[in-house]
Amino acid sequence: MVTPLKDRDTLDVSGLERVIRHVLAGGVQGLFLLGTTGEGTSLSHRLRRELIERSSRLVAGRVPLLAGITDTSFVESVNLARAAAEAGADAVVLSPPYSMPEDQVELREYLEHILPELPLPLFLYNLPPLTKVAFELDVVRWALDQPRIVGMKDSSGSMIYFNRVREVTRVRAGWALLVGPEELLAEAVLLGGHGGVCAGANIFPRLYVELYDAAERGDLPRVRALHSMAMRVAEEIYRIGSHSSAVIKGVKCALSCLGLCDDFMAEPFHRFGEPERRRIQSALKAIQPEVATALKTAA
Amino acid sequence: MVTPLKDRDTLDVSGLERVIRHVLAGGVQGLFLLGTTGEGTSLSHRLRRELIERSSRLVAGRVPLLAGITDTSFVESVNLARAAAEAGADAVVLSPPYSMPEDQVELREYLEHILPELPLPLFLYNLPPLTKVAFELDVVRWALDQPRIVGMKDSSGSMIYFNRVREVTRVRAGWALLVGPEELLAEAVLLGGHGGVCAGANIFPRLYVELYDAAERGDLPRVRALHSMAMRVAEEIYRIGSHSSAVIKGVKCALSCLGLCDDFMAEPFHRFGEPERRRIQSALKAIQPEVATALKTAA
Amino acid sequence: MVTPLKDRDTLDVSGLERVIRHVLAGGVQGLFLLGTTGEGTSLSHRLRRELIERSSRLVAGRVPLLAGITDTSFVESVNLARAAAEAGADAVVLSPPYSMPEDQVELREYLEHILPELPLPLFLYNLPPLTKVAFELDVVRWALDQPRIVGMKDSSGSMIYFNRVREVTRVRAGWALLVGPEELLAEAVLLGGHGGVCAGANIFPRLYVELYDAAERGDLPRVRALHSMAMRVAEEIYRIGSHSSAVIKGVKCALSCLGLCDDFMAEPFHRFGEPERRRIQSALKAIQPEVATALKTAA
Amino acid sequence: MVTPLKDRDTLDVSGLERVIRHVLAGGVQGLFLLGTTGEGTSLSHRLRRELIERSSRLVAGRVPLLAGITDTSFVESVNLARAAAEAGADAVVLSPPYSMPEDQVELREYLEHILPELPLPLFLYNLPPLTKVAFELDVVRWALDQPRIVGMKDSSGSMIYFNRVREVTRVRAGWALLVGPEELLAEAVLLGGHGGVCAGANIFPRLYVELYDAAERGDLPRVRALHSMAMRVAEEIYRIGSHSSAVIKGVKCALSCLGLCDDFMAEPFHRFGEPERRRIQSALKAIQPEVATALKTAA
Repeated sequence: MVTPLKDRDTLDVSGLERVIRHVLAGGVQGLFLLGTTGEGTSLSHRLRRELIERSSRLVAGRVPLLAGITDTSFVESVNLARAAAEAGADAVVLSPPYSMPEDQVELREYLEHILPELPLPLFLYNLPPLTKVAFELDVVRWALDQPRIVGMKDSSGSMIYFNRVREVTRVRAGWALLVGPEELLAEAVLLGGHGGVCAGANIFPRLYVELYDAAERGDLPRVRALHSMAMRVAEEIYRIGSHSSAVIKGVKCALSCLGLCDDFMAEPFHRFGEPERRRIQSALKAIQPEVATALKTAA
Repeated sequence: MVTPLKDRDTLDVSGLERVIRHVLAGGVQGLFLLGTTGEGTSLSHRLRRELIERSSRLVAGRVPLLAGITDTSFVESVNLARAAAEAGADAVVLSPPYSMPEDQVELREYLEHILPELPLPLFLYNLPPLTKVAFELDVVRWALDQPRIVGMKDSSGSMIYFNRVREVTRVRAGWALLVGPEELLAEAVLLGGHGGVCAGANIFPRLYVELYDAAERGDLPRVRALHSMAMRVAEEIYRIGSHSSAVIKGVKCALSCLGLCDDFMAEPFHRFGEPERRRIQSALKAIQPEVATALKTAA
Repeated sequence: MVTPLKDRDTLDVSGLERVIRHVLAGGVQGLFLLGTTGEGTSLSHRLRRELIERSSRLVAGRVPLLAGITDTSFVESVNLARAAAEAGADAVVLSPPYSMPEDQVELREYLEHILPELPLPLFLYNLPPLTKVAFELDVVRWALDQPRIVGMKDSSGSMIYFNRVREVTRVRAGWALLVGPEELLAEAVLLGGHGGVCAGANIFPRLYVELYDAAERGDLPRVRALHSMAMRVAEEIYRIGSHSSAVIKGVKCALSCLGLCDDFMAEPFHRFGEPERRRIQSALKAIQPEVATALKTAA
Repeated sequence: MVTPLKDRDTLDVSGLERVIRHVLAGGVQGLFLLGTTGEGTSLSHRLRRELIERSSRLVAGRVPLLAGITDTSFVESVNLARAAAEAGADAVVLSPPYSMPEDQVELREYLEHILPELPLPLFLYNLPPLTKVAFELDVVRWALDQPRIVGMKDSSGSMIYFNRVREVTRVRAGWALLVGPEELLAEAVLLGGHGGVCAGANIFPRLYVELYDAAERGDLPRVRALHSMAMRVAEEIYRIGSHSSAVIKGVKCALSCLGLCDDFMAEPFHRFGEPERRRIQSALKAIQPEVATALKTAA
């Protein structure tokens, strides 16, 4: 989920309400706050706490609430986890600390040290393009023996990695393996993954929910149709400008065009300017009826 | 400067005193706290503040005190800068926010936005191996027009970059261009750079101070002798294990062997084990008299 | 297909016969010579020509024969293409020239210049981990307008890229989009790709042929079973040693263990030593009956 | 040295004569053919041989002639080395084979295997940005024990690496350690390196020769002046367009502007268009008199 902002340290409170209402209405099965799309690490710790508290009150237990606690500092991650627990989150999500790359032994020790400090169950967040370090398979195997580690979100972008993790995690029933990039949701679920954390679900929640459902029950023609639609959304909304932050910018801009929330972005990023906004607007105009048709036709 | 720790959130206070006394006795012209070697981003914000305060009191104005304020969050960097000012630091040092890479326009805007919020002069910290983003020359040229930006520490490891920056920054007298890796101190200063921020100066402060002095006055035979010595230190102390954190580990372990401070390291790293420690000890034993001789002979 | 070698410039002729007989018996629909697994660029031009000639005679038109012609030199690639045509190959396969990375405009021009020189239809070979340059979507769109470019083998390892290419190439019926890593064959075909070029098909050709067939007709339970088997092969055979050449070494060693061909490798690589060979042997012993069972059960 | 071309497989013979005359007149102490700037790997093997033969006749023993023999194929590199020996070259230069990265054990074995096949002494060519693999220090130490390996050209761009290699190679007198990027020539020689292989010496040979001489005898003021001039050349001539091939394009275009040779480039590159050519022309116009002045003043 995005973090609707009025400025760099002020939540867009009514936008937050609208976005949460919108995605819950779309049928999503959980909310992940303060991930990459949520600009988690760009926000002050105070605002991160406020976001979890407000979201928790708004969601009111209807779906599980996951809160990102990744930080370069171990102690600050623990502080965030405690705040998340107090605020009513259901689990925390942690990637290797951004900053200097640690080796796999250090990464496992890092997890060993932090697990007893966390008041909530933990999802691993595999994000090597940004953290430089992946959870290699030996660490994943170790994690399967930790009752408090309950799943992983894999945003590596590599389905070879995802497939390998799926094979080894199969031994622990209920361990949730989720895929990050929504362009990979169809295949991840078709071959046995448990779901996805889709940035696009901020805009078109029902599209990804139904794609997931179709893949779950093996309805291939519907999977293909909705997957093509998801590819279309990514192509038109996420690839404007050449910036690595194009996904977040595209999503926030689209939400603003739809009147759902402000598109202010925390530094080091900024919202799209007028030319990009116009492109998003016309993309939305073209895509919205097609998404509606795809959802109907395929049903 | 390293951050002496007793455990992940406790300063080694007497170690800190000894290290500061040691490096000041060695003649260093400034102290840089909370950089990469100082494990800055791994520490809690509380401890970072405590370190600046205590160091400031110990240094008591004898040399300028620079404090790293890099954080993934703009607001937290500003909070740190304010704390640094209150604690008596003389300048702050800032690299691009670790996390998602921004483009150069965003990087310049980030600096434009943060400058008015900073109560102290700013050094740029170029660290692309860790932050993924470098200050490209157009941003450096822009920075030269900002009176509050007073210099750069370049830890890119690229002397081509350093040479290019030196050529463009020459127009602003007093703008300090410092090099990160001490293996490059000799050449940086010989060709017109203004100094270095040397991890090894925690251990052998006089070696780097005299190498700097020799380069400054163009005493090539002495530069070559002391530079070889500095290469020797790096080879023996910084390359144990294959970890990207080998420099910090080596420095902290050496300081511990010398009785200067504890070698505890904040997560995600850990201190060297016994076998590595023994290698550091015997390296120190071999190097210490050679450093002493080199300093005498060359003088 | 691997290139069976007796030494660095001598084909293992009887090994070549056995391997070709083996994979054709397994039902493969084509042979790709001189790709990465075929050590194409490591061989002398003379030997590359000999391999195509002998393979062409052995295949005798039963399946299409594709020959890799990638070289750092444009002229040498054209020379190879001519030799391939004379030797009876059906198409040539070309990645961007290894060496200095060119930009997309240069890459398109490179293709524009080479197309009229090639006597055979062309498959693009997308291999950015080795060539540093990918065929970006604009070049793919341009390629769709070239009648002589008939498909692409994508070894990027990125299913996001593969999915994007599939969406844009859909407009040209018959344009073949093949995936490189066999760990991705299932999902590539389930969502509309046209097949794979599987290193493992040298060892277990029927496994990948049947996995392809199952995916083609949407038989999800069988796809999942055979895909798991394929993941198992990759895990046990391709990940011995930490070398980037582990796949080729594993495949050649397995073929040697099975008595199909010599496992000599051209420089800069060398065959596995005894310990690795023993691991491959016991992996084969465990996997062979399981592959047989999976093929039967699933049928 | 560049390879003057009339088209992709035709030498610009009179251009070659003029360039060789020009650089020899400038006082260079050797010629390196078929390196990166010489587009070595982009040319047909036939043309590479022709270039060595013609150059050898033109140089007529006045300076040593080094020929690049890097190829993805071991056998083809040996073929090139034999042709180079017959054509009268004095040494060959070899980087790790472009294509799949090998590990250090494989790299050393590769050298062990190729050394007895080479009829000429060998320079190692360290080029990790393009070959993905560096000669690590253990391989360098091994190389020092091979009488037929007589030096290294380091184009890594890392002075930390260069400094480390210099320290370990010091034990073998006469082993030549040369730096690739000319922006690093001054520091490389000031601290004990043996010279550089400067692309810019195609245009302004005397500038780099005199910079080398000044560094050799420790004339720091002159070094600084000429080094600044060399930085200026790089800034104005090598950074037009954003292409990784900008250096070669800039050099060839400048040579063409000066009437020395054609600026045709082998695929995958192409010569600069008119706008870039005009920028090179006006840069040359500005720089030429300054180079002349710097050479005079400093003398």
